[in-house]
Amino acid sequence: MSIPTTQKAIVFESFGGPLLYKDISVPAPKPNELLVHIKYSGVCHSDLYAWKGDVPLPINLPLIGGHEGAGEVVAMGENVSDWKIGDLVGVKWLNSSCLTCEHCMNGRETVCPNADITGFTHDGTFQQYSTADAIQAAKFPKGTDLASAAPILCAGITVYKALKTADMIPGQWVAISGAAGGLGSLAVQYAKAMGYRVVGIDGGKEKGEFVKSLGAEAYVDYLSSKDVSNEVNTITEGGAHGVLNVSVSTSAMQQSLEYVRVAGTVVLVGLPAEATIKTSVFDAVIKTITIKGSAVGNRADTAEAIDFFNRGLVKCPIKIVGLSEIAQVYKLLEQGKILGRYVVDTSK
Amino acid sequence: MSIPTTQKAIVFESFGGPLLYKDISVPAPKPNELLVHIKYSGVCHSDLYAWKGDVPLPINLPLIGGHEGAGEVVAMGENVSDWKIGDLVGVKWLNSSCLTCEHCMNGRETVCPNADITGFTHDGTFQQYSTADAIQAAKFPKGTDLASAAPILCAGITVYKALKTADMIPGQWVAISGAAGGLGSLAVQYAKAMGYRVVGIDGGKEKGEFVKSLGAEAYVDYLSSKDVSNEVNTITEGGAHGVLNVSVSTSAMQQSLEYVRVAGTVVLVGLPAEATIKTSVFDAVIKTITIKGSAVGNRADTAEAIDFFNRGLVKCPIKIVGLSEIAQVYKLLEQGKILGRYVVDTSK
Amino acid sequence: MSIPTTQKAIVFESFGGPLLYKDISVPAPKPNELLVHIKYSGVCHSDLYAWKGDVPLPINLPLIGGHEGAGEVVAMGENVSDWKIGDLVGVKWLNSSCLTCEHCMNGRETVCPNADITGFTHDGTFQQYSTADAIQAAKFPKGTDLASAAPILCAGITVYKALKTADMIPGQWVAISGAAGGLGSLAVQYAKAMGYRVVGIDGGKEKGEFVKSLGAEAYVDYLSSKDVSNEVNTITEGGAHGVLNVSVSTSAMQQSLEYVRVAGTVVLVGLPAEATIKTSVFDAVIKTITIKGSAVGNRADTAEAIDFFNRGLVKCPIKIVGLSEIAQVYKLLEQGKILGRYVVDTSK
Amino acid sequence: MSIPTTQKAIVFESFGGPLLYKDISVPAPKPNELLVHIKYSGVCHSDLYAWKGDVPLPINLPLIGGHEGAGEVVAMGENVSDWKIGDLVGVKWLNSSCLTCEHCMNGRETVCPNADITGFTHDGTFQQYSTADAIQAAKFPKGTDLASAAPILCAGITVYKALKTADMIPGQWVAISGAAGGLGSLAVQYAKAMGYRVVGIDGGKEKGEFVKSLGAEAYVDYLSSKDVSNEVNTITEGGAHGVLNVSVSTSAMQQSLEYVRVAGTVVLVGLPAEATIKTSVFDAVIKTITIKGSAVGNRADTAEAIDFFNRGLVKCPIKIVGLSEIAQVYKLLEQGKILGRYVVDTSK
Repeated sequence: MSIPTTQKAIVFESFGGPLLYKDISVPAPKPNELLVHIKYSGVCHSDLYAWKGDVPLPINLPLIGGHEGAGEVVAMGENVSDWKIGDLVGVKWLNSSCLTCEHCMNGRETVCPNADITGFTHDGTFQQYSTADAIQAAKFPKGTDLASAAPILCAGITVYKALKTADMIPGQWVAISGAAGGLGSLAVQYAKAMGYRVVGIDGGKEKGEFVKSLGAEAYVDYLSSKDVSNEVNTITEGGAHGVLNVSVSTSAMQQSLEYVRVAGTVVLVGLPAEATIKTSVFDAVIKTITIKGSAVGNRADTAEAIDFFNRGLVKCPIKIVGLSEIAQVYKLLEQGKILGRYVVDTSK
Repeated sequence: MSIPTTQKAIVFESFGGPLLYKDISVPAPKPNELLVHIKYSGVCHSDLYAWKGDVPLPINLPLIGGHEGAGEVVAMGENVSDWKIGDLVGVKWLNSSCLTCEHCMNGRETVCPNADITGFTHDGTFQQYSTADAIQAAKFPKGTDLASAAPILCAGITVYKALKTADMIPGQWVAISGAAGGLGSLAVQYAKAMGYRVVGIDGGKEKGEFVKSLGAEAYVDYLSSKDVSNEVNTITEGGAHGVLNVSVSTSAMQQSLEYVRVAGTVVLVGLPAEATIKTSVFDAVIKTITIKGSAVGNRADTAEAIDFFNRGLVKCPIKIVGLSEIAQVYKLLEQGKILGRYVVDTSK
Repeated sequence: MSIPTTQKAIVFESFGGPLLYKDISVPAPKPNELLVHIKYSGVCHSDLYAWKGDVPLPINLPLIGGHEGAGEVVAMGENVSDWKIGDLVGVKWLNSSCLTCEHCMNGRETVCPNADITGFTHDGTFQQYSTADAIQAAKFPKGTDLASAAPILCAGITVYKALKTADMIPGQWVAISGAAGGLGSLAVQYAKAMGYRVVGIDGGKEKGEFVKSLGAEAYVDYLSSKDVSNEVNTITEGGAHGVLNVSVSTSAMQQSLEYVRVAGTVVLVGLPAEATIKTSVFDAVIKTITIKGSAVGNRADTAEAIDFFNRGLVKCPIKIVGLSEIAQVYKLLEQGKILGRYVVDTSK
Repeated sequence: MSIPTTQKAIVFESFGGPLLYKDISVPAPKPNELLVHIKYSGVCHSDLYAWKGDVPLPINLPLIGGHEGAGEVVAMGENVSDWKIGDLVGVKWLNSSCLTCEHCMNGRETVCPNADITGFTHDGTFQQYSTADAIQAAKFPKGTDLASAAPILCAGITVYKALKTADMIPGQWVAISGAAGGLGSLAVQYAKAMGYRVVGIDGGKEKGEFVKSLGAEAYVDYLSSKDVSNEVNTITEGGAHGVLNVSVSTSAMQQSLEYVRVAGTVVLVGLPAEATIKTSVFDAVIKTITIKGSAVGNRADTAEAIDFFNRGLVKCPIKIVGLSEIAQVYKLLEQGKILGRYVVDTSK
């Protein structure tokens, strides 16, 4: 496989600055790294945050964003085993972690203090060739549809892990707030495949039909509902055992404390920079509820999330555009106008 | 055993009204109930709430308060098995539950919607003879020191369950906010007996010495500390794996979100009517923390909490006064002047 | 609702003795009991054991067998709440437990030393009117098809609980040995509804088709297979994460230790009186496998198992015969000739 | 730090062949490895197995045994971070694992099919300088007594993990069979530090006193007891919640099925090549017991086991001899004559 010396990439040099589509050098993998020919990359809401500098996470400048990259191994460092040239591979948010801190040792590598984050501290997947630690890189089986698989690498893993974090058993109800969005639409499908019963919450009739077509048993339309919490409580006969807050709306998150079942779990997933939720101590104690933050997922979560995808149980509605068109995608993201997920084709 | 027809009790007829020490009839047990000759009863902060009506829980009036009663079985209903006249018995907060709802079926009987609560909806233990459901009543072995055991029935169970709720493994750090109080001093001892490492938080040097004498490895004095969170984080090398908020101070609860370890658990225990805590969604997600409400404990928690007490691993520093002196005890409670636990002797 | 004074029942007076279809008195419920008009009752393999006395469990003689009874509440004791005349109800293996021993307190009421067992120590459901403890009795919603629901009360609960005991996560493989039998065919459906991937093991092509029609992804035919373990290991790419041994064959159980995945769990479910399995200590340690015994299920398992049935996710292929024909059903059971489950109609 | 080019080591070239104390080259670390100046190494029963070839595990010949090495980092490969020259370090049984297989991803690296095992497939710690993968190597804090710490690296981790595997809660009973041996004496101390109640089982009065001095509440002497199971059941009021079989006796392991509590867990730890235990299926199901194999521990278990040691809660009674005396130690091991643990000083 011949590797070029230069490639196309989207680079920005200051927060909110121009997103330059330009030629840069192809990076060389370190001893522990793969060089991946990125074919497709999903575009995530946190890419937008990184570009705007609107998130209290370390970010290196200049930066190439993107952390849902799907491609092919074209080279690797001398220390790498378990990979072959031509293997299909995913480059995800967590590029590498130290593997020796208490969190890494306990399978919580996503909170490793030494984590290297793709598209934040490590140049990301909005380029044709990117590097990725061989231990964290995700394996795709031969024949995987890379464009469709790309969004699994962040959106898919995130909602799958959040569902595990909700600590339900099959047959229980999960409420998904923001069910028709990029994360939500995946969450509905994962939840169904895991044996949970889904009540989706979002705005508008059309979204309701979409959410039901993905497997939700019930839908609550916050635009037309007089009392969202009451509706959820009625449908689930007492409240949802688990709640996934994939909506970025603070008031929606706040509301979820009202329709979570006694002894149930509310999972917070998104990363809005300023949002807070207020918990009544009395209610939390009397209802013995649990509130948990969940951040992407570890290697095992990744493999499992991909496995559901590969078995055809989870489909991501994507729209493919050229890498050069990232700026327009960011605009749509900011306007909240995206149903499903945008994926960029790095060859365009 | 001869049972009198009348007895002494503390009765109030309106919220905040007079606490009358008077003669009333001895109640008759229902088919499923024990009649318990209460010897001693602990006085809990929520007895004060109930009297003042300052808690959004169902309360029957007129009412006899108290839910930490230790005594002896003197009679029982026809359906009762597993108990003998003369057995030592504890009457606790949860007098009975339906045993058939989803919560009861899952060992969460304390959140049963049909729960009957001693000293709230069921006349309590501030009388010489009270009734208690035979299934929920707690067993004390022969020879138990009933006065010392009384506070285990609410305070002990509550902190023991909260420690279980914090979901730690032996060897991990628990921070206990309000460590020198009635609940806190028990929590420190349970935590140590369960193999956890304790950092106590409270105000003043004297309390620090007390807390350390109970088994805490470290103490943070919020009166003299420049930065409580920083101190806890330093002592525990990264934050407490679990936090028990037994203090009723909202700001202390709020602060606990800062010194809980990444991936750790904050447990809320108290029932302040109006308090709320604010959680930064971003921090919760990035730190993947868990916030949980915990309410007393179920039958198994009760038996386990009593077992630690019986093995001499947990001692409750008590002060015994007469039943007739309840009003004065309430005053001290309101003023926050109590170290350890007051227990009333029903014979006085 | 008028309750007759006599009824039809199948009674035997000695182990293996005549199964008399005769008129007996309708029993009276104790204060804690329901009187249930049994409409249908499933016939379980352990009914056969009980009749033959071929199981080391306490059995009262003379006895009315049967522990999968579905019917209607026609009367109740004075202590019963939460039930109304006319409610649909299931009478299951565990008729009552003490609710106060360590096992009952921990949701393990099926191993309560004071358990009263329907069809063993408590007259069973092969009669038109039987009594059942109101706390353990199972609730069926209005409109439930009682004949189809009957086998859920033992067979359904047993396999559902065994699946929970295997401690898998959705997406993992479960191997079900004896997949086409009465228990197995339910196990396949529950497993699928819970998000697991099923490989069924049984003998013959026809059973394979049946098992696949119920949701199994793969089937291994032990009659034609050269190496069952190898086949399972290949299909599951490394062994089944969980194994359910619902077959009564000792060699099949023994074999399951070979095709359980490293770190996986083998669940033993049946009650063959003499069978033993031999575990190589070296293999168990090196593979870090788990072997667990599972016995029916508790109240929560019961409610959950019924819920899957009510949602239409689990169907029990039944054959209905008259109560008077029990003796013939036992013969077929002994000959191992039954596919699915026989259910008796108590009106015939 | 100057590193010599040759060193002393104990090498054997054939199973059971001479244990040569000779000069060999100091190995060079690979990019991911540390070079460790081994100061002390514990001697484990499985070292004996490896030398005799008496265990169905891959073993490279010629071989240097030993897998409880404690020393100092003297060099490291280019890819290593998180380590400094002079750091104290432990070289343990699991030298390295792939970190990418399903087991590694789930924290079960000890069952990684690509594991490299110290003293089996990787030259061990019976030499002055050995290599160790930097991710798996264990960190000791400054000032650690390396001779005493050495046995923690296999014996300590193994029993600590086995205790976790028994899945008990603080306050429950653990029976330790072989309580006075090298593993057993550590197990007693860990169990006590974790809040469990210990009943030790071993042979002879002297061992009983030793075991009690380590923290066991009770002791059963199988040499003088008429019925070991009955004694354990009496002491624990119903059987041990968990059992650790660190004895290599098959009959002792077999017996543990009799004194494990209903719903309790029997853990198998040792690696006797031929031993099997027989489980009555009926008993396993009716008692709902669990039997689990446990093999050493992962990185987190290692760090935790060392932490208990560093806090002074676990002391290993060791006898130090010279590295050159290994052959004599093996003889004593074979004769079962060792109390506590032998540790070799590599400078002699």
